[in-house]
Amino acid sequence: MAEFHLIDLIRERCAVARGDVRLGIGDDAALLAVPAGQLLAVSTDTLVAGVHFPHDATARDIGWKSLAVNLSDLAAMGAEPAWATLAVTLPGADARWVGEFADGFAALARQHGVALVGGDTTQGALSITVTIHGFVPEGVALTRAGARAGDGVYVTGTLGDAAAGLRVRALATEEGRFSLPPLAGEGAEGGRGHLLDRLHRPTPRVAQGVILRGRATACIDVSDGFVADLGHICTASGVGAQIDADALPASPELLAAFGVDARRAFQLVGGDDYELCFTAPDALASELLRDLAHSGCAATRVGRMVAGAGVEVRDASGNPLPLPHAGWEHFA
Amino acid sequence: MAEFHLIDLIRERCAVARGDVRLGIGDDAALLAVPAGQLLAVSTDTLVAGVHFPHDATARDIGWKSLAVNLSDLAAMGAEPAWATLAVTLPGADARWVGEFADGFAALARQHGVALVGGDTTQGALSITVTIHGFVPEGVALTRAGARAGDGVYVTGTLGDAAAGLRVRALATEEGRFSLPPLAGEGAEGGRGHLLDRLHRPTPRVAQGVILRGRATACIDVSDGFVADLGHICTASGVGAQIDADALPASPELLAAFGVDARRAFQLVGGDDYELCFTAPDALASELLRDLAHSGCAATRVGRMVAGAGVEVRDASGNPLPLPHAGWEHFA
Repeated sequence: MAEFHLIDLIRERCAVARGDVRLGIGDDAALLAVPAGQLLAVSTDTLVAGVHFPHDATARDIGWKSLAVNLSDLAAMGAEPAWATLAVTLPGADARWVGEFADGFAALARQHGVALVGGDTTQGALSITVTIHGFVPEGVALTRAGARAGDGVYVTGTLGDAAAGLRVRALATEEGRFSLPPLAGEGAEGGRGHLLDRLHRPTPRVAQGVILRGRATACIDVSDGFVADLGHICTASGVGAQIDADALPASPELLAAFGVDARRAFQLVGGDDYELCFTAPDALASELLRDLAHSGCAATRVGRMVAGAGVEVRDASGNPLPLPHAGWEHFA
Repeated sequence: MAEFHLIDLIRERCAVARGDVRLGIGDDAALLAVPAGQLLAVSTDTLVAGVHFPHDATARDIGWKSLAVNLSDLAAMGAEPAWATLAVTLPGADARWVGEFADGFAALARQHGVALVGGDTTQGALSITVTIHGFVPEGVALTRAGARAGDGVYVTGTLGDAAAGLRVRALATEEGRFSLPPLAGEGAEGGRGHLLDRLHRPTPRVAQGVILRGRATACIDVSDGFVADLGHICTASGVGAQIDADALPASPELLAAFGVDARRAFQLVGGDDYELCFTAPDALASELLRDLAHSGCAATRVGRMVAGAGVEVRDASGNPLPLPHAGWEHFA
């Protein structure tokens, strides 16, 4: 599908010049220079139509999200993004679709100074695989393995919006409408729009990951769902976690649109939020929270790590809450 | 599809330990150390069922080939392979298929000391995307852009076997049989087996690419077809090429199985050979050819670069040969 010129199109629209790209797209491989003293952080994620985004998602949103979920993985390591490769499988030639996909990808790439250094376009069922590359100085990378009993558990931003957006979308589809009127009291860009934006155009917490470098004891991004992802920290660190359900940060839009049971389900097991969940000792907490708030994305303390294993969620009375059906809600 | 444990399975079967992998699979990203003085070479390629391999290809062959085509890109840059990420999209759970895929991938990964450092498994139409990473010292990488008029044109190994294997396979399918009896005078592992092996389990010329470092003036791997790929060198270098059709290296198996017209078509436009096509000044030629022969894969001089543009192929009388239909023969 050379006629697509997809990779060239995205490269042109990204137009991120980096001195560390010695040879970019156009040869058999890119040649790249990793700065001295830095480790290379590498992650790869595939998005499949009907699984990771709905079949009717806009090309622009798919382009954005395919990069965003990969940037979120770097953020969780405290790494700064540098380069991406992009493999796109498409059912057929559609110049408008490709242009909009490129716009969505490039918009986020520019924000983070990410250069596209390689790509492949093939014909088949729609899916996108991005491999992202970033830098983190030796010795300060964040992993899932360092949490200790007594550490606080924190989460950036708010939880549950993406899952709520998915529900909003499902309700709209059931009603045979893809464009809902605004809720009472909200404008056209109001609550439902915010929730859908959080679903379709997540914000990777790259700057926040860098702030956490060498300070958080463990970190992960919330992609599968808060409880599942915090569970990964528990397993890797050999400790447990106690979470206060009422402490989980919720957006005003989520609070306005759904009752407490739905909200808790979205926050605990909804996934797709791409916030950072991290642990830190109390001695560092106030400084960390201040720095995060200054970065434009505050973090909230939601519980603490304890001896043991697994994640326990408690209500305001201190009683364990049964978890809603765990796992990620697929589109398909 | 966490139940697949595909990535874990391949990682176990690869079991390539590298000191430069500071943190491997299991966190949000791998952490990797590029040696001082080396550039990182990165390339990505997707294989789609029905396009890049037949729907009835064995899982083992698909695993092998998905890594081989990427290693071939590194070879064309003169880079040494180090790390790979692997994204596999599968229609459903099939433990046997996954195990065989892992065996094929791991067999080639072990040969080249490639550590699997990241992966993703998703559900959908079968496709595989590998991103390969390797090292090449600053200043000696091979590109497509350095060929000069007067340079000789060379190719490693033999050309046309993969396209011939594809034809053998098509003939077998037309006859309703997927397993052909050996040709007269060949054993079970004879001519047809060799041609099919070259199609399904190509050998990336990694050691030969390293030998060419800083010596070949331009290099590319033969994936789309010899004329098309040499054409990329012509375009990037701003010169033309004159090729002697009778000089193109052919395997005994190809010579035995097909007449001259089919053979030339396979050699010139067949593609999928994954040999290296390179250019070098005459002053370096004998030393280069000796070193390549010692590596176990000899190279053959097939023509020379000239002022002008494009690839001209001539027969033994010096008359220009019309090219067979250009482009790569898809399975689908």
